[in-house]
Formats: sequence, structure tokens, C-alpha cells
Amino acid sequence: MSQLRPTPYSFNRAQRDQVFKVMTLQLDQASTTQLREWETTLAQEYQQFKASGLNLDLTRGKPSAEQLDLSDAMNLILGDDLSNESNTDLRNYGGLDGIPECKRLFAKVLGVANDEILIGGNSSLTLMYFAVLFAQNQGFGALGASWASEGKTTKFLAPVPGYDRHFSVCEHLGIELIPVALNDDGPDMDAVEQLVKADPSIKGIWCVPRFSNPTGTVYSDQVVDRLAQLGKLAGSNFRVFWDNAYAVHSLSDDAPELANIMDRCRAHGTEDSIYIFGSTSKITYAGAGVSFAGMSKGNLKAFSQHLGMSQIGPDKINQLRHVRFLKDSEGLAAHMRAHAAVLKPRFDIVLKHLREGLADTGMASWNEPQGGYFVSFDTLPGLAKEVVQLAADAGVKLTPAGATFPYGKDPDNKNIRIAPSVPSLEEIDRAMAVFVNCVKLASVRQRLS
Amino acid sequence: MSQLRPTPYSFNRAQRDQVFKVMTLQLDQASTTQLREWETTLAQEYQQFKASGLNLDLTRGKPSAEQLDLSDAMNLILGDDLSNESNTDLRNYGGLDGIPECKRLFAKVLGVANDEILIGGNSSLTLMYFAVLFAQNQGFGALGASWASEGKTTKFLAPVPGYDRHFSVCEHLGIELIPVALNDDGPDMDAVEQLVKADPSIKGIWCVPRFSNPTGTVYSDQVVDRLAQLGKLAGSNFRVFWDNAYAVHSLSDDAPELANIMDRCRAHGTEDSIYIFGSTSKITYAGAGVSFAGMSKGNLKAFSQHLGMSQIGPDKINQLRHVRFLKDSEGLAAHMRAHAAVLKPRFDIVLKHLREGLADTGMASWNEPQGGYFVSFDTLPGLAKEVVQLAADAGVKLTPAGATFPYGKDPDNKNIRIAPSVPSLEEIDRAMAVFVNCVKLASVRQRLS
Repeated sequence: MSQLRPTPYSFNRAQRDQVFKVMTLQLDQASTTQLREWETTLAQEYQQFKASGLNLDLTRGKPSAEQLDLSDAMNLILGDDLSNESNTDLRNYGGLDGIPECKRLFAKVLGVANDEILIGGNSSLTLMYFAVLFAQNQGFGALGASWASEGKTTKFLAPVPGYDRHFSVCEHLGIELIPVALNDDGPDMDAVEQLVKADPSIKGIWCVPRFSNPTGTVYSDQVVDRLAQLGKLAGSNFRVFWDNAYAVHSLSDDAPELANIMDRCRAHGTEDSIYIFGSTSKITYAGAGVSFAGMSKGNLKAFSQHLGMSQIGPDKINQLRHVRFLKDSEGLAAHMRAHAAVLKPRFDIVLKHLREGLADTGMASWNEPQGGYFVSFDTLPGLAKEVVQLAADAGVKLTPAGATFPYGKDPDNKNIRIAPSVPSLEEIDRAMAVFVNCVKLASVRQRLS
Repeated sequence: MSQLRPTPYSFNRAQRDQVFKVMTLQLDQASTTQLREWETTLAQEYQQFKASGLNLDLTRGKPSAEQLDLSDAMNLILGDDLSNESNTDLRNYGGLDGIPECKRLFAKVLGVANDEILIGGNSSLTLMYFAVLFAQNQGFGALGASWASEGKTTKFLAPVPGYDRHFSVCEHLGIELIPVALNDDGPDMDAVEQLVKADPSIKGIWCVPRFSNPTGTVYSDQVVDRLAQLGKLAGSNFRVFWDNAYAVHSLSDDAPELANIMDRCRAHGTEDSIYIFGSTSKITYAGAGVSFAGMSKGNLKAFSQHLGMSQIGPDKINQLRHVRFLKDSEGLAAHMRAHAAVLKPRFDIVLKHLREGLADTGMASWNEPQGGYFVSFDTLPGLAKEVVQLAADAGVKLTPAGATFPYGKDPDNKNIRIAPSVPSLEEIDRAMAVFVNCVKLASVRQRLS
């Protein structure tokens, strides 16, 4: 935290100490008089924040310029040498499944064999969109007919809170989302198993299994194994959509590992029940990376056949750029440590504010992620929208409350996603001071009302 | 043609001269005796070709390595400087519609305004696929409901011969194709107008308006104007799919120009009835170019909204690379002249063989394109498959007969697409000698049978 310059708050330290001191008290043990006093002090502090004309943004789940700089060597790395393993002209059309050296590198990231992967363009979201689209409308080739052919509304399970773009893919394609709880070890598997057994029109489940967006959850080995068995419980053509977006995105070397789901599927004979996705969007350039999809050979055959109707091949030159730059698993690991060095201090400052300002107050809970891009924060039930609004009015932009739930509806109105990767340390420090104040103010007011 | 080395035919010149001389006679004026003599000579020649162990390929509608070399400077052009007009970090997510400098450059190519274009990834086929998909399933936002919502099978008109990948997009999305004749000045507009007036479930027409694949047709001003008026005749939500793939791909400076369809649409108040597409696949790198779609602001709004469900943005770094490399319209024109210098001798040698071997024989007709990538060749009715098979057996690979028609069915079994861009001049020379022989042999045999 030594990089951090003192923050130029417009109120004095004595005022702050007073606020922090009183707030270590538990909300539910405070008398009405105490609550009124707190409200006055917090409202005063809030007005000072508001008057200071802040313009801060904690919404953006994307790499900072400092992180993107780490990959700038990519732009010059090819030189005149476009030689490659397949000894083909990468500049030309073709090669729908990507170049072999890229497959080998990212198959390890996804935990699949070198012939169980396809390397795409700059967006894994596009691969996921196509995967859902083809499954819904065209089917799985020799593996099975389309979901639509069953004549019922297709349904997906959505562990919540989750990633809004997964939800919007389903909404766009007319697929109904059924929320299930995301516990500390992954989706509530009792609920998941019960649901898929009861309703064969449930055809998929969205998973971000390591450093889940936004909760930072790493699925336990047991949960991974139970997910690998879903293909046996579920109706025909069920697929687990395994978006391993943060597969190598830990903040430290001792972050928990994720079990290899393809291995578990092989053990259970359910290899065809899983689609695995990933990309370098948060490894190299968010807008100019490469994406990949891992799946059984049967799935890959059907998926490629459909994908080939919409394109002749991906940008293989950019794939070569990536292999030259990242080299191998060791090169990738070293590169990700450089990312962690940029990201971790940002997470530390978010957590410092939450711990110092809100621990043991009974006002909030949050995760302390060991990787990924987010801190997931829960207010008391019913307060997320108010906190987001209070913060916005004081110049601190937060992801809209509800965004982490299907149809934007958080039934408890409590979850807020904090994204600290883009702002500077100082900006995060200022924004989090405001955020903590807003949470306290909203909580005290709710208690008083 | 001075680059051309003598071809090492295994038969002697006297034999060749004899063949060529006799073949200048018209097929339908030959006696049975003459036909039998020709058959013997041609079959002899064919056997000699077959024995010479050729392995030649005239199927590939893609740039040659020599053409791709023209753009190699792109790989190093960015250096450390990623500065751009929008002054945003192009390395990061976002910018679904592309970067402004790229829009300006390619809006001129498509003939639309700078706010009527979206710059995509490496494949215009993907943009076309999405355009058909969204129109079919999601609709046009404020401009209209989806085709599917009308409850009937959607139909498209397919000028034939045409581009197989257009047809397969429709087939994949469950859209029925109705062939219409492609005349020398474009689609048979009398037929087109009659069809769309009679059947409101006809929702689109595929057009490659300049140097059409495979016939090299440039649509006349009158045809362009009539196509621009289709939006008034056709059922609701009709769209012309204007794939201007060869917009700047002329073989000489005096090739015919194409009228600006967006201007014509504006004149008729039908701006919303057209989707225009293009790419740099045959300008820079076929696999690593940029694609673009031009459309009215209303269409663009709806299309972008749907596209944004499947991706966060295109590879903007590659877009910057393209603008830096091509610079402006003048830079683009100069670059395309360098392409023409590589391509034209290849077309010249194809045409030389056809003229010398088949002119005035009554056995064939073909186009003499002034741009694009193909020569479209018609045998006598019923012979295309046989010619393709004969050539294949003699080591010359041709695009499968029928590929230029919906569902692979050429009703006259006569059209063959010749793609001379990839082979060397010598290879084309050898392949075309075989091809001409196969056409003659099949024609004479048909006449004899």
C-alpha cells in the first residue's frame, strides 16, 4: 500500500475517527438515540463527499491501461516471420479451428486435449452465443437434435449473483433463466440436481467456476464432480456452459485451484455434456485477444460444422502473435503474475475500506476474492439500489443494483458488484470511502424507519 | 504474358496444332466421321494429360501469396503508437461499431455516410449471417418485427449462378431459396419484381453487384435503381443483401463503375430496405482483415443492439492497423492496382485458352470479367459434371459443378466456376489446356451419343 498517496478528504481526521469509532458498534445493538446521532454524522460526511465534486467509476470489469501495457510487445512480435507449425499461409482464409500451437497452449488452460479445442476470434462471448444458438436451433449433429425441436421453452439454470452477459445471451435467444443460489463452494447442487431431474426442458447451466463473476467463488472439487454428473441426471442434450474466464487470473500463488471438469466428465462418461470457454481478454488485450472453446470431439465436430456457416476462419495472424508472445504455460504464468502485481493492491484497498468501515457492524457482507475482477458486496436486504443511488449522487458510479441477476431483478435488492481494476489506487481509496459512508447511511436510515 | 515459361507438354506441337485446327470448326456442322476423328484425337490428348501426373487446383477463390505479400507491412505498422481519433484505449473492450477513422475510409468504399457504417471483425460473412439471423428471429427494432413472427417460411431470391456461402447462410437458418436468372446487367428484374409482388414471404435477395461471384457481372445503373425500389414493391421488412465484396477489385482502371445504391434508395425513400456489406479479405489479408456493414441509421441501431448480445466489440487494434496501412481512398486505390497487376495476367491466360480453344466451336460460353476473382464458364447443357470429373481424373481440380446454385443443383448442369488467383501462371496454363480438352472431349462425345 506504500504507493498510496494520502487522500485529500475535505473533512478532518477527528471527524473520520469519530465516524469509524462509532460504527464499530453493531447496528442491531444501537439505541434509537445512537442511530439518530450516527445518521446526523454520516449525513454530514455524505454532504461533504457530495460537495467535493467526485467523478469516480467502480463499474468497469476490464483491465487497466497498466495491465494492457504488459502485452504491447505483441504488436511488433511477428516481424517478417509468419512461419508456423502447420506450415500454412496464416494470412489467407481457412483454419476454422485455429492454429495448432495456439490450441496446445490454451488446451492446457482449459484442461482439455489438443484435439478438443477450437481457437476463435477476439470474443469468447461470441463462441458462447453461437454455442447456445446452434444447440437451440440446429442441434448437435450425430449427438442429438436441437432443443427447439422438443417443442418446449428451453430453460437454463443461472447461479446468482452471476454475469449479466450470460443472462442476456439467453434472453436474446428466447431461453428462460431459473436462478439458483451460488454458495461459497459453487452452485447449490442439491437445488440444481433436483431441478434438472424434475424438468427435462432445463438444457443448460451457466458456470464461471474459478473466481466467479462477481463473487470470486472457486467451485469445490465436490461441486465440479457433481456438475460433471449432471449429464446423467438431466434431460437429453443438456450442456454445462463452463465459462472459465478467470482460469489463470489469481491474485496470488496460493489461490485455490479448480478441478479439471473434463477429467471428471471422462470418469463419468459425460464428456459430451460440457462446453468449456475461455479467452485472453484479461490476459493480453481485452479487445484484441483470442477466444477458445473446449469440448468433446463429437461436440466439436457439430459445433464447427455450424460455425463454418457463419465464417471461413478466425484471425490466425493474431493467434500466432499470441503464441509468440506468451510462448508456453510458464510464459503465461509469469505474465499473469505481472497482472496480479497490478491488480492486488487495488483489491487490497477495497477490502481495507470494507474491513475497517463495515466489519462487525451487521450492515454488510462481502467476499474476499483470491482472483478475478470483482468484489461482490451485500447490503442489508432492500438497500442495494439506495446505496448505488446515494453513491451516484456523490459522484461514485457503481454497477446498477440487480445487474448480477437474470432480468436485472435481485429479489433481495442487496447485491452490488465492485470492480476495482480500472481506477487508480487513489481513486479507489476515495470511491470506497464514499461507498462505505453510503452503506452506513442507508443502513442506519433503514433501521430508523 | 512474357513472364510465362514454355509449358512442358508431353505431346508434340504438331499434335497440338492439329487438335486446335480441327476444333475451330463448329460442333453442329461436323459430320459423324469428323466427330469420330476428333473424339480419337481428343481422347489421345486427354490420356497424355492424364499420364503426365498433374496436380493442379482451380477451385480456390482466395488471394495468392504474392497478393498477401502486398500487405505484410501491416504487421509492423503500429509500432508503439496506438493513438487514434477517438482518443480511447483501442486495446480494451468496447466500441461495437468500430473506430472512426476506419468508418470514414470504408464508408467511401460502400458509398454510405460515416454514421451509416459498422466496422466488424475479420469476416463479412459473419456480419451477413448475423443480419439474416437477427432479421429472422429478433426483428428490426423500431423498424419492424422479425420475419419469423409472420408465421411463414421466409424466402430469399438467389440470382444464379451465385455465391454458395450466401446460399448456405439461408439453408442454415431455415430460409428457402428461390433462384432467379442473373443476366449480363444483373438479376432479371422483371422476374424479381413479379416474385416479390406476388409473395410477401420473400424477404430478401442476395446481390454481389460488382464483379459478381462467379460471373463477374457489374449491375447496370438501371438494375441498381430497380433494386433500390424493391422496398416499395415487396412485403414488409424486405432487405436487399448487397454484398459488395469486390467493390474496389477491378483488373483495370477502365472497369465499369457501380451506381451507389444507398443514393438511389435515398431518392426513393427506401434507405431501410438495404444492408450493404464488404471486407478487406481480398484487399489486405483474407484471414485477418476487417469487415464492414453499411445501413440506414434505423437499421444500424437495431442491428447493433442485437450484435451487442454476442460480443463486446471488434478487434480495434486490427482496424487501426488497416487505416495506418491503407491510409485513405488514394492509398487504397494504389494498393488495389498492385493486386490487379498480380491478378490480370492470370485471368488473361485463362481467357487466352478459352478463346483459342473454344471460341466459335458451339461448345461453350464464358464471361470475360473486368474484376473480381472468377471466370464463369458454361458447357453445353448437361456436361458440367462430366467435365469436372474428366478434369479431376486428369489431375485438375475444379469447383464442384452445381456449387454456384442453391442446394448445389444447377438445373442445366452447365456452369463451372474457374478461380485462377492462387495457381502460378504456368500452372494455370497447364490446367487450362486440360480443361479445354475436357470440354471438347465431353462435347464431342455428347454429340456422338
